[in-house]
Amino acid sequence: MELLTTNNVWMMICTALVFFMHLGFACLEIGLTRQKNTINILFKNIFIITIGLLLYCLVGFNLMYPGEFNGIIGFAGFGLDSPLTAEGALDLTYNEGYTYWTDFLFQGMFAATAATIVSGAVAERIKIVPFMIFTLIYVGLVYPIAGSWKWGGGFLDAMGFYDFAGSTLVHSVGGWAAVVAVCLLGPRIGKFKEGKAQAIPGHSIPLATAGVLILWLGWFGFNGGSVLSADPGLTSLVLVTTCLAAAAGGVSAMLLSTAMYKNMDLTMFLNGILGGLVGITAGADVVSPTSAIIIGVIAGVLIVLAVSFVDNKLKLDDPVGAIAVHLVCGIWGTLAVGIFSTNPDHSFLTQLIGVLCYAAICVVSSFVIIYVLKKTVGIRVSEKEEIEGLDGHEHGMDAYPDFRLNDN
Amino acid sequence: MELLTTNNVWMMICTALVFFMHLGFACLEIGLTRQKNTINILFKNIFIITIGLLLYCLVGFNLMYPGEFNGIIGFAGFGLDSPLTAEGALDLTYNEGYTYWTDFLFQGMFAATAATIVSGAVAERIKIVPFMIFTLIYVGLVYPIAGSWKWGGGFLDAMGFYDFAGSTLVHSVGGWAAVVAVCLLGPRIGKFKEGKAQAIPGHSIPLATAGVLILWLGWFGFNGGSVLSADPGLTSLVLVTTCLAAAAGGVSAMLLSTAMYKNMDLTMFLNGILGGLVGITAGADVVSPTSAIIIGVIAGVLIVLAVSFVDNKLKLDDPVGAIAVHLVCGIWGTLAVGIFSTNPDHSFLTQLIGVLCYAAICVVSSFVIIYVLKKTVGIRVSEKEEIEGLDGHEHGMDAYPDFRLNDN
Amino acid sequence: MELLTTNNVWMMICTALVFFMHLGFACLEIGLTRQKNTINILFKNIFIITIGLLLYCLVGFNLMYPGEFNGIIGFAGFGLDSPLTAEGALDLTYNEGYTYWTDFLFQGMFAATAATIVSGAVAERIKIVPFMIFTLIYVGLVYPIAGSWKWGGGFLDAMGFYDFAGSTLVHSVGGWAAVVAVCLLGPRIGKFKEGKAQAIPGHSIPLATAGVLILWLGWFGFNGGSVLSADPGLTSLVLVTTCLAAAAGGVSAMLLSTAMYKNMDLTMFLNGILGGLVGITAGADVVSPTSAIIIGVIAGVLIVLAVSFVDNKLKLDDPVGAIAVHLVCGIWGTLAVGIFSTNPDHSFLTQLIGVLCYAAICVVSSFVIIYVLKKTVGIRVSEKEEIEGLDGHEHGMDAYPDFRLNDN
Repeated sequence: MELLTTNNVWMMICTALVFFMHLGFACLEIGLTRQKNTINILFKNIFIITIGLLLYCLVGFNLMYPGEFNGIIGFAGFGLDSPLTAEGALDLTYNEGYTYWTDFLFQGMFAATAATIVSGAVAERIKIVPFMIFTLIYVGLVYPIAGSWKWGGGFLDAMGFYDFAGSTLVHSVGGWAAVVAVCLLGPRIGKFKEGKAQAIPGHSIPLATAGVLILWLGWFGFNGGSVLSADPGLTSLVLVTTCLAAAAGGVSAMLLSTAMYKNMDLTMFLNGILGGLVGITAGADVVSPTSAIIIGVIAGVLIVLAVSFVDNKLKLDDPVGAIAVHLVCGIWGTLAVGIFSTNPDHSFLTQLIGVLCYAAICVVSSFVIIYVLKKTVGIRVSEKEEIEGLDGHEHGMDAYPDFRLNDN
Repeated sequence: MELLTTNNVWMMICTALVFFMHLGFACLEIGLTRQKNTINILFKNIFIITIGLLLYCLVGFNLMYPGEFNGIIGFAGFGLDSPLTAEGALDLTYNEGYTYWTDFLFQGMFAATAATIVSGAVAERIKIVPFMIFTLIYVGLVYPIAGSWKWGGGFLDAMGFYDFAGSTLVHSVGGWAAVVAVCLLGPRIGKFKEGKAQAIPGHSIPLATAGVLILWLGWFGFNGGSVLSADPGLTSLVLVTTCLAAAAGGVSAMLLSTAMYKNMDLTMFLNGILGGLVGITAGADVVSPTSAIIIGVIAGVLIVLAVSFVDNKLKLDDPVGAIAVHLVCGIWGTLAVGIFSTNPDHSFLTQLIGVLCYAAICVVSSFVIIYVLKKTVGIRVSEKEEIEGLDGHEHGMDAYPDFRLNDN
Repeated sequence: MELLTTNNVWMMICTALVFFMHLGFACLEIGLTRQKNTINILFKNIFIITIGLLLYCLVGFNLMYPGEFNGIIGFAGFGLDSPLTAEGALDLTYNEGYTYWTDFLFQGMFAATAATIVSGAVAERIKIVPFMIFTLIYVGLVYPIAGSWKWGGGFLDAMGFYDFAGSTLVHSVGGWAAVVAVCLLGPRIGKFKEGKAQAIPGHSIPLATAGVLILWLGWFGFNGGSVLSADPGLTSLVLVTTCLAAAAGGVSAMLLSTAMYKNMDLTMFLNGILGGLVGITAGADVVSPTSAIIIGVIAGVLIVLAVSFVDNKLKLDDPVGAIAVHLVCGIWGTLAVGIFSTNPDHSFLTQLIGVLCYAAICVVSSFVIIYVLKKTVGIRVSEKEEIEGLDGHEHGMDAYPDFRLNDN
């Protein structure tokens, strides 16, 4: 009982920290985009966290953790169904690490994250209503079903696939949809001139920086809570590997980008930190601190290369670098478990199979959803609206009415 | 001893989160008002949290928790008086859920909130010194005396009135004073033209949004800590009901306002979340998650209707929507306990009596304080100062000296 | 085991809060300086936290806590070396209050703070590369060696010197280096005209205010975690003394500055809070709440006097008031232990000796480092770069590209 109380306290705090990541995402996304689309992005983010929680209550939790099921899809029924004792009180024997309510809420906070990742990539040109419809389906159905394959005890779990806190189950799930959405949506007006990628500077680097530090803080809960108890050895190891990977990712991205571009680019530094965080997420509890630093360093390198590759080779317009951070480093982190894990049962091949299975479900499902939306209601705002900004057109508001602004 | 340690850890964290709400209130209030009054609002908020803690130490704690008393007003003496063991150490048998120091600090963080609510409603036109005097009296005397009626074991507690974390004791106490202050103060210049309410846009919607997310985070501690221990079943239930009500309040306000005004209004979405949070606060530990969603949905509807009613019918100028959020939803949440509580001892009638008692003490006391201030030192800045902004006149500073600004 | 789990949870949360202080410092520093140097300051802050953690992992932790050593300098070897049980698991008997990993991470978060304090004082004119070199040496070597004298069990610890959470070991260590750096660097262009100090207003007072509130929140962990366990009596006492000193410091600085300058200066109010926090840090666990208020009041007075003294008498240009806050109040707090401590073993004289020893090591080492940098690579940006802003020159970016700006 005492131990459950302590474990549950830790899990509730981690839940709060994961919730707070939504402020981090919001700050990061608006900071890296133009002021004329700020309200729109914030609206999407607020929509995602609110509707995400409600959907996870209605269907998601029971899709993701269906109990006994065929390993691919299962459903334990609508709404929450708390286990009760014979006297009608909450049954605290549910789990040694947390109560039923904590379990739901911690997982619910994760659910919304996948859609938030997409939000950044499609910013500044997607229509709000189709994005909301996409969110409903992706957060309500795709994320929990895909999640059940591993965390719900499905077929990938049975195969020995390992993803501690979601390099794949959360970050790549968002990242794959981001790629698909960006392809179907096309680049922002002015992003490519004569085939060359143009920088479109974000309107508030302080907000972007605050966003990254808030996200890092949130990762204490995201990874720390994924131990699913307050086990002192494991939770503290996880915080150490998480922070060292973040630091190493930042420093390596900063050094490489400075060497490549002769410029001390703060946004690369910041994205390197995020890359390190995403990279360590799959194996934070099964690697040593030294391995965590190596994973972070490689993640930082990948960030610099991937941002350039997405921009200049793939010619995809991803305003906030979501593909590099969440997809590329999400894959890297998942594969890294197969390389650095101290658990001999983890294999590179199984990790690769897991990555491919998630690629399949996410690419297919997000393509179907977004393609149908594109062919029916349309997904892109008008040229006039894009140039003048989504805030005035979709929301009838300005983000900064007292400030004099440039036309960007 | 182990259990006290765990309980106390939880309560200290909740204390920290409630403290952090003051950043949330500050961001929300300045975000929803004009840049020329930013310093003034921040000054008020910083004043409230600092002086609030000192006053609660000096008199508030012992007014609110006087021990044995007549049920209406009692006072256990100035300053803190920690219970000691025979050896002179802190007596840890004080309570199973927290130490004496934690008790004081958690309650002290609550005390300042009531005045902060008023601060938003009177923003952009109140003189700073009378506001500071009002704060001294309201936080130092009115809040703790009113609070003693229920949480201190006074006559409303004896009647069976229930207010878990303060829909009435905190939010309505602030909300009633906000109504009185707004009436005595009058609207900002330009708010009403030919009897029609005009929108005066806030100067930074990102700050307002950040404020709401910080407040939501803080509510994990505000409601979670009001369990007064780390009881795993109760605390986790409270976090679930709190978050679901917030989400439901936001979504319902967003849907209704979009339907009514054909515009996806972010500030309504945000105020809906706050309405849901205030609404669930009175009963977060005695309602089911489903009931929490219903309470939140109704709170969101009330927000949209009340904001319009205050503006267009009452012709009151409440720049941040404090009356709708804290008073209307505070009343709703308190009455909702009488409808949705799983505890058969809770009755709608008793809840209504409680609401009316708090209305009486708050309206009368805040009227007396503010009316006297109005007739003596005056409460409203000069027309010139209001038009040019309070920052330059009262504080000799600009909030954003490097930015070019519009004259609003 | 249960108690270790609870203690460790508290220590991990405090670690997260101390990490979050880096956002507080970042917001405060950029808020109080001009927009044209924002990216530069953020870059420095992000560099400090990332490289600081990596260095603390590589050498710092084992320099600061070398085990048995001569009391002046010791080193337990490169990298981390977690204690293991015979079976190869983490040895949880390491300490009753935390695991080896938590110990490292909590202390690592402290390490970066010293350099961050310097960052604020040298803002807007220091070259980035020499600052980075300074950071490497100061965070990697000076801070941990100096720290070992007390917290590592060195000669000052043996003498009975007391510094609970680092008024001296963290804040003065940063503050002394700030004085040296400011002297060697010289004032910003335009700071002194005909020998008179000119105000150079910070570009975002909301950010500065948010920074202070975030720092205050972080201090719950900074001081609360320095108990090194979740001991309920001590941790809660520490939070109370910390918050009361912060509140008292703010109020006294506000009252004094209003009396002296006939102006309600928000930044003095904010710096008073920080002064109170720094002042209570050395003795938060050994003074009564009443003493904490007195310590805070005096800290607030010192802030107002010291800011003026640094500006007008010493003619030093410290853009954020770091010397007043961290050095002056750091010294005050350390000496205050000798006055107010409830522990009769604490003596004013020993405290004074400690202050002088840290003055010696910090002034000498920071002078050597910065002087060598000045004579080799140079430490100051060109006049052109300083006038146009460091962001464009060193980082090729603007912090606020969508906003129209004044030339400041």
